[in-house]
Amino acid sequence: MTTSRQIHLVRRPDGVPVVSDFAFVEVDTTDASDGQVQVQNMLMSVDPYMRPRLTSDQALNVAMIGGGIGRVVQSRNPDFREGDLVRHAAGMQELFTGDGKGLQVLNPDPALSLTVYMHALGGTGITAYGGLLETGALKHGEQVFVSTAGGAVGSVAAQIAKIKGCYVVGSTGSDEKAAWLRDVVGIDAVINYKTQPLAAALKAATPGGVDVYFENVGGAHLDAALPRMNLWGRIPVCGMISTYNGGGEGVRNLFNLIYGRIRMEGFVATDFPHLQEAFLSDMTGWLKDGRVKYQETILDGFERAPEGLIGLFSGLNNGKMLIRVSH
Amino acid sequence: MTTSRQIHLVRRPDGVPVVSDFAFVEVDTTDASDGQVQVQNMLMSVDPYMRPRLTSDQALNVAMIGGGIGRVVQSRNPDFREGDLVRHAAGMQELFTGDGKGLQVLNPDPALSLTVYMHALGGTGITAYGGLLETGALKHGEQVFVSTAGGAVGSVAAQIAKIKGCYVVGSTGSDEKAAWLRDVVGIDAVINYKTQPLAAALKAATPGGVDVYFENVGGAHLDAALPRMNLWGRIPVCGMISTYNGGGEGVRNLFNLIYGRIRMEGFVATDFPHLQEAFLSDMTGWLKDGRVKYQETILDGFERAPEGLIGLFSGLNNGKMLIRVSH
Repeated sequence: MTTSRQIHLVRRPDGVPVVSDFAFVEVDTTDASDGQVQVQNMLMSVDPYMRPRLTSDQALNVAMIGGGIGRVVQSRNPDFREGDLVRHAAGMQELFTGDGKGLQVLNPDPALSLTVYMHALGGTGITAYGGLLETGALKHGEQVFVSTAGGAVGSVAAQIAKIKGCYVVGSTGSDEKAAWLRDVVGIDAVINYKTQPLAAALKAATPGGVDVYFENVGGAHLDAALPRMNLWGRIPVCGMISTYNGGGEGVRNLFNLIYGRIRMEGFVATDFPHLQEAFLSDMTGWLKDGRVKYQETILDGFERAPEGLIGLFSGLNNGKMLIRVSH
Repeated sequence: MTTSRQIHLVRRPDGVPVVSDFAFVEVDTTDASDGQVQVQNMLMSVDPYMRPRLTSDQALNVAMIGGGIGRVVQSRNPDFREGDLVRHAAGMQELFTGDGKGLQVLNPDPALSLTVYMHALGGTGITAYGGLLETGALKHGEQVFVSTAGGAVGSVAAQIAKIKGCYVVGSTGSDEKAAWLRDVVGIDAVINYKTQPLAAALKAATPGGVDVYFENVGGAHLDAALPRMNLWGRIPVCGMISTYNGGGEGVRNLFNLIYGRIRMEGFVATDFPHLQEAFLSDMTGWLKDGRVKYQETILDGFERAPEGLIGLFSGLNNGKMLIRVSH
């Protein structure tokens, strides 16, 4: 038996979450018994998708949902050895014991950082890959707009589109992120939606219209994108972060869907198991040859997870936001 | 040479169109020369789709767009005989002479009214049929919500869904239309969106959720439908009449697309030529055996077309709105 900590939601947020919506709770973690493993959490992911779930199906007073990477510290299950690195969806806890279901043993490529298995090679990456290529039915050479292109999913989507020979415009919320997208990633045009008039800037940046709008934001972003959509355009809907904390303007330009025969379609990371093998092969190659670049914002310490999650809504992160629980 | 009249748009409407946005213009119509036909217009259609075009691509000071049925009164074209009934897209004019391109000779079923060839067996019908069955990918026995179910397209869509064994809820804007839908058409539940709180009424009327929302309205209707959509639901977008004259609330519930994996997709009547044969066969049968019922509002007189078009936005029509130009 060991004492460890969990992060609980103790109050449903009203608008942007605050640190006091969460509590750190000490729990006793049992040792692994027959068939069980005990995992020490190393890295946790905080993601925009968590926000709507704080209002809907995240139970109060239990460990928060979430994915991470941990190390097996006790194993009485023949499928795992002590020392194995595993990807898990066990949520926000320092240490946990279970039967091993849902744990995926990682054999990280030594040329890559372990952290990429929590983003470009993890849920973030397959979200961008499946959303763009399958839901968005991206074709070589098309015109693409990616919102929050400096974020975790957006930056991967923008780069996949570039690899597929597309003209890519991205929006982001800071000049620093804009510079990274323009100068390091090399997309074709960048809009800082906090300093530029979004609709006018998007119009100027998309002289050929938009075939695929990779939607992470909703609200004003969607209203700016809709009139730019080309006939038979697609809007894969990955997220609508502008709406998650309430407020904001409603969307007024949806009538553009009709004559444009635009298809808007929602998806989530887990919709693409059939693409997993191709995704891992493609993305590992793209990361190793530098065709997919990334940024990470890693907050050190289990106790910083609420701050990290909240920071997603003010753009605190450059690229993927991770919480380092232990080394 | 004969004198006849055309209806011109002379000013782009600001909000709901008014009669003075249009003008009646006398023109000289030439007699048919070699290869030509002259057509006397009999019936004209006024449709919601016309409103956005008054703001966009309807040219000023030429005959308004529009479809109709006419009779060939002069023919020097071997493809047409004098007396032939033809369906046309020649717009709002009493008489016109041309080379016959775009004219479709009708052989109306003697058991049916000629007027149905301007709605259930015309563009209205194929819009409902293609939008519901192809864009909406309707499956037998699904849960269906149709907005403006008392209107031309909506009433056909609702009845096709019933024929396909679905549970069908319709919204409409008057108790008279609601009674027709409930008592004559026999759909499963009717909401009068002018007297009932729409979101609450839709929730109560759709205990099994909604698999297909046939969208004619936008705005508050869409916001009411989105939270009711079942996983993998479809929203074929036929129209958004609530938005055509400006104003109204923006749409706030689009985030439901994501977890629901909802597909929203626009379409127009002309997208379904490959379904035309099946549509004509199915719909002729359904009309003749009474499985598809209809209402018509026929305004008598060419000069009533502007009034008819404007009346669509206040629900003046029961079912299909037509203008009778001549007998």
